[in-house]
Amino acid sequence: MMIVMKPGATPQQVENVISYVIDLGLTPHLEQGVENVFIGLLGQNYSIPVETLEALEGVQQVTRISQAFKLASRQFQSEDSVFPLAGYNVGGNDIILIAGPCAVESRSQIIETAQAVREAGANALRGGVFKPRTSPYAFQGLGEQGLEFLAEAGQATGMPVVAEIVSETQLEVMLKYVDVLQIGARNMQNFYLLSAVGQVRTPVLLKRGPAATIEEFLMSAEYILTGGNRHVILCERGIRTFETTTRNTTDINAIPALKALSHLPVILDPSHSTGLSEYVPAVARAAIAAGADGLIIEVHPDPPRALSDGRQSLTPEQFAELMHQIRAIAEAMSRKIARVGHNLSDGW
Amino acid sequence: MMIVMKPGATPQQVENVISYVIDLGLTPHLEQGVENVFIGLLGQNYSIPVETLEALEGVQQVTRISQAFKLASRQFQSEDSVFPLAGYNVGGNDIILIAGPCAVESRSQIIETAQAVREAGANALRGGVFKPRTSPYAFQGLGEQGLEFLAEAGQATGMPVVAEIVSETQLEVMLKYVDVLQIGARNMQNFYLLSAVGQVRTPVLLKRGPAATIEEFLMSAEYILTGGNRHVILCERGIRTFETTTRNTTDINAIPALKALSHLPVILDPSHSTGLSEYVPAVARAAIAAGADGLIIEVHPDPPRALSDGRQSLTPEQFAELMHQIRAIAEAMSRKIARVGHNLSDGW
Amino acid sequence: MMIVMKPGATPQQVENVISYVIDLGLTPHLEQGVENVFIGLLGQNYSIPVETLEALEGVQQVTRISQAFKLASRQFQSEDSVFPLAGYNVGGNDIILIAGPCAVESRSQIIETAQAVREAGANALRGGVFKPRTSPYAFQGLGEQGLEFLAEAGQATGMPVVAEIVSETQLEVMLKYVDVLQIGARNMQNFYLLSAVGQVRTPVLLKRGPAATIEEFLMSAEYILTGGNRHVILCERGIRTFETTTRNTTDINAIPALKALSHLPVILDPSHSTGLSEYVPAVARAAIAAGADGLIIEVHPDPPRALSDGRQSLTPEQFAELMHQIRAIAEAMSRKIARVGHNLSDGW
Amino acid sequence: MMIVMKPGATPQQVENVISYVIDLGLTPHLEQGVENVFIGLLGQNYSIPVETLEALEGVQQVTRISQAFKLASRQFQSEDSVFPLAGYNVGGNDIILIAGPCAVESRSQIIETAQAVREAGANALRGGVFKPRTSPYAFQGLGEQGLEFLAEAGQATGMPVVAEIVSETQLEVMLKYVDVLQIGARNMQNFYLLSAVGQVRTPVLLKRGPAATIEEFLMSAEYILTGGNRHVILCERGIRTFETTTRNTTDINAIPALKALSHLPVILDPSHSTGLSEYVPAVARAAIAAGADGLIIEVHPDPPRALSDGRQSLTPEQFAELMHQIRAIAEAMSRKIARVGHNLSDGW
Repeated sequence: MMIVMKPGATPQQVENVISYVIDLGLTPHLEQGVENVFIGLLGQNYSIPVETLEALEGVQQVTRISQAFKLASRQFQSEDSVFPLAGYNVGGNDIILIAGPCAVESRSQIIETAQAVREAGANALRGGVFKPRTSPYAFQGLGEQGLEFLAEAGQATGMPVVAEIVSETQLEVMLKYVDVLQIGARNMQNFYLLSAVGQVRTPVLLKRGPAATIEEFLMSAEYILTGGNRHVILCERGIRTFETTTRNTTDINAIPALKALSHLPVILDPSHSTGLSEYVPAVARAAIAAGADGLIIEVHPDPPRALSDGRQSLTPEQFAELMHQIRAIAEAMSRKIARVGHNLSDGW
Repeated sequence: MMIVMKPGATPQQVENVISYVIDLGLTPHLEQGVENVFIGLLGQNYSIPVETLEALEGVQQVTRISQAFKLASRQFQSEDSVFPLAGYNVGGNDIILIAGPCAVESRSQIIETAQAVREAGANALRGGVFKPRTSPYAFQGLGEQGLEFLAEAGQATGMPVVAEIVSETQLEVMLKYVDVLQIGARNMQNFYLLSAVGQVRTPVLLKRGPAATIEEFLMSAEYILTGGNRHVILCERGIRTFETTTRNTTDINAIPALKALSHLPVILDPSHSTGLSEYVPAVARAAIAAGADGLIIEVHPDPPRALSDGRQSLTPEQFAELMHQIRAIAEAMSRKIARVGHNLSDGW
Repeated sequence: MMIVMKPGATPQQVENVISYVIDLGLTPHLEQGVENVFIGLLGQNYSIPVETLEALEGVQQVTRISQAFKLASRQFQSEDSVFPLAGYNVGGNDIILIAGPCAVESRSQIIETAQAVREAGANALRGGVFKPRTSPYAFQGLGEQGLEFLAEAGQATGMPVVAEIVSETQLEVMLKYVDVLQIGARNMQNFYLLSAVGQVRTPVLLKRGPAATIEEFLMSAEYILTGGNRHVILCERGIRTFETTTRNTTDINAIPALKALSHLPVILDPSHSTGLSEYVPAVARAAIAAGADGLIIEVHPDPPRALSDGRQSLTPEQFAELMHQIRAIAEAMSRKIARVGHNLSDGW
Repeated sequence: MMIVMKPGATPQQVENVISYVIDLGLTPHLEQGVENVFIGLLGQNYSIPVETLEALEGVQQVTRISQAFKLASRQFQSEDSVFPLAGYNVGGNDIILIAGPCAVESRSQIIETAQAVREAGANALRGGVFKPRTSPYAFQGLGEQGLEFLAEAGQATGMPVVAEIVSETQLEVMLKYVDVLQIGARNMQNFYLLSAVGQVRTPVLLKRGPAATIEEFLMSAEYILTGGNRHVILCERGIRTFETTTRNTTDINAIPALKALSHLPVILDPSHSTGLSEYVPAVARAAIAAGADGLIIEVHPDPPRALSDGRQSLTPEQFAELMHQIRAIAEAMSRKIARVGHNLSDGW
């Protein structure tokens, strides 16, 4: 970190800054320039907010040279994080393909969908049971019964299951049923929830908030990592911009940027990032071509009858067609779709 | 709500849409145009997400004519909501002026600040005790001890106190100490928390999320109102845009827009909406001139030593100077700053 | 400007950077830190793009300490720019109030409007004659005939006239008729046009682009100033954000920020920044309370029949009512509305 | 278009709306709903701005059912536009790959770059000669001499050349040298310039403005098409958002959206849309996987010495490596890179 003092800063102001940073446990490094005094800071400075230093008298500008996050960074760990999930690896050469409905609506709906996406080549099953909805009048999810149905569908098809947790009070019940805990976009900065999932060892799929910068996204991952849970999957799901043709704007730049800044696996959710089922295949292919480690895609047996997100859900047939396209792009990238099947007899 | 069918929509598709909306409890109203069939919907349609209808086959477009929120709307209640707080009214002709530090840091810090802002004319005291921080390495607040200090400072100065609640698990302890529950910007769509504070009768200061539209903001207020708590104060605190000169962009348009769309009191937080103390006075004056019902402003006895948000905090002297300006603008608007003082002997 | 080299940067890389900046006419100032080498740059470095230096091998980061603009800055000129227009001053204690229709539609329309706004207290007249329209099918303006009508209306009422120039090829004809040349938001970075109006001495009203940062806005002003024309009025007119309730988002922060960074007069256009006539008064008052030096407001004798921007135009009656409010806020700010009238006999 | 009247709209207000739209040449179609009157509009209504109708008294809301553009739309022409350029097709199954420096800096620089990118497989050459720069102090381009060098480099390598036109006054000189006229992002709504290039028959590469919606982008294409020039190439180049890790945010959704809404060829500029050379390959691959018809990429023989955009330029070696990757993705999409070579002897 580098502090630039104002041209006319007094010796007393410089001294104040120096004693202030020493109190923070940092080593200041003074340099008298021609117009400005510069103070370099050595030590564990990722914990010091820039704005605090900028509030000191006589300070003109503070520049962070190293990053504000540590455990999530490539500097901390240069090789990719890879961890096992249901007999395959997340984050290595294989591609994870999570599919399923926005919400678990009934036992038959989730089992039917699970079988269809499994047959098409998905290797994990998603389904929401506690739905955070913009309107208090909208369907709010099946709760624990939904978890039971989801877990049953996962077991029947040999796929690990992913569901969203929206409050730390649900952690115990979620852990009984799910293989991956999802933190939704609206909760990306629910720090109590992040800390709670940092205490367990179940993998966490962390979605980027619609207005979160890439740095803030990695800071939220850092909350989980500092708790000791190293199994974090980063998920780009579109950001909010002025464009209204699509529900969100897919930040495809985030794929190479996150891969460069962090060692964590990175996936994309083209269903939310576009909001329109007809654009999902193009953006799903783009993500794999950009180097994403996987996708999470909404599939519903009858999208117009879906209780939520019907407009962005693929039919099982559309999903199967997309899987063919994804395989072709993955091959061009010298990668392949991970396969489950260890507890299935049919050799899929 | 109005559904426009595609030009070539089949009779079967039209019939499907009609039976679908009847299932939702709505009365469809069919109109055969020259190119399109139009289906008007009557009934309690604010609970129907537009995108669900758009997913039906043959549908070209769905337009919401009435608003997606009800209890928060001017249609539902045409006169302004006004409710009492510590001997004065929120939401009427009087202006509420909440001041205090970002975080309660010590007993002396909060008491000293409370006395200073009270003397300058503030009528409520703010102070954070559970701080949601972007970085896991930053100061996280004093917790319940902070609440004790805050309540003591409020009692000593006769001011009601405002503190942020970040998890529904804190509700019980918060209610022991605070007069107004604040929901922070990052929790604007934490629907469990919104539902929880809807169950009590303590006023709620609801901050707009940095990427929330005005409609979404009012939908979050609706969550609280549907629980039965009608004492909601809306707070604009800046939105996230491409501009980086300031921390956020103050959406001053939101003041007249919220007043037009809703009957709830509307205040502005110029500290967060600018992020720079030198711009706080100008934006505070602007808010009152635009018709806001109050302000919430960060004041710290020694901003450079603040443990958070020092860059945007006023000193007590700067705050006192600002109060003079605010009074002048309020007078030009034929309004005045609400006064506390019922449990003080000095006749303030 | 400060260049931070990467931790492992080679001596050869450092030497390359040094010889590179010497070629640019700058004086490098080397400092060997513990992990990084720092190179401070002295001299006229506002002309050096940061990204060019960041492309040099071994460079980690480049920070601009001084601003990228010079003539427009407060550093260059600490006192406010004030210049005369039609017998009053722009940029001093007086407030400029430009009113009139979006487009000149007919002789009678512009004369009628001019008389109405003059009577209400406006001190300058606006009217577009070459309209940049999003759609090629929309009304494109009356051209030179419109200029004649506008000039006649200005003379009849004693008000200076403002019209938008959209191409440098129109400069000659515009100068025959107008007192202030307006550069519209879409042309804020039309550098040929900026350079052209920099060559004349007629005041320029420069609108901020809807996606321009404050720094870019001031850089565009710099284009005009470097040509020798020092009479530039900065106009905030709303930026593009995710919010759709209003046409644009009024960046009220920009008022104090521009006043702090630059000595040029700053006005606001609440008609475009809100897009809805019902919100214009609140935002107009807010601008004056925030310290703006004036306003430009769309007024039309019959808004629903306006050929453009009817939705955001005030009627003459609404404008007159707004003038009362503006006067009250101006008084609270110890300012007053400038008055024209030197060539009128009625003593207005 | 559909006009919804307010619940209590008077018969006189309804009649006014009807006579108003008849004056516009439209056929109103009245429908008395239970609460609202609806007025459907038939006819060439793409030329009617929604906001004009919304300004009429008694109108609650106006919804555009058909699009605001016509000639650019898929409705107008369902099959893809394909047109010849230098012996291959733009917009069909082949992929156009335009490469070259941001600015032509010298004869040797452009010829050297042209040979390198041609050898790697590019099929068109770019190079700026009139540079629109944010700062008046930055390099502004070589002007006509640059055009000569560019044309010579194009002829030497058999590639068509692309250069940006920034003013309609340059049209004559540009047409002497270039094969494709580029309209830059800052000029996307310079309607005089759009109209001017609509009058010629040279293909136009139209870049999307950084804050332009997809609809506005297509409206700008419509300006060119209405002039009679049907050879328009749409180019996504990143939009401005709150994210600062990258220079712009690549709107990858725009690729399938533009292909769905329009018949015009669509390409992507990953150099500007990321701003960082290390992210260009990932985003270039993503564009082809998403269905783009081509790419325009900045390549410079010595990026750190580039007079502009060095930070986002690839070296010839990096470009050659990227071409291998692009070919693999194109093949997975059953497409191929177009080849020039008709006036070269080596059979490339």
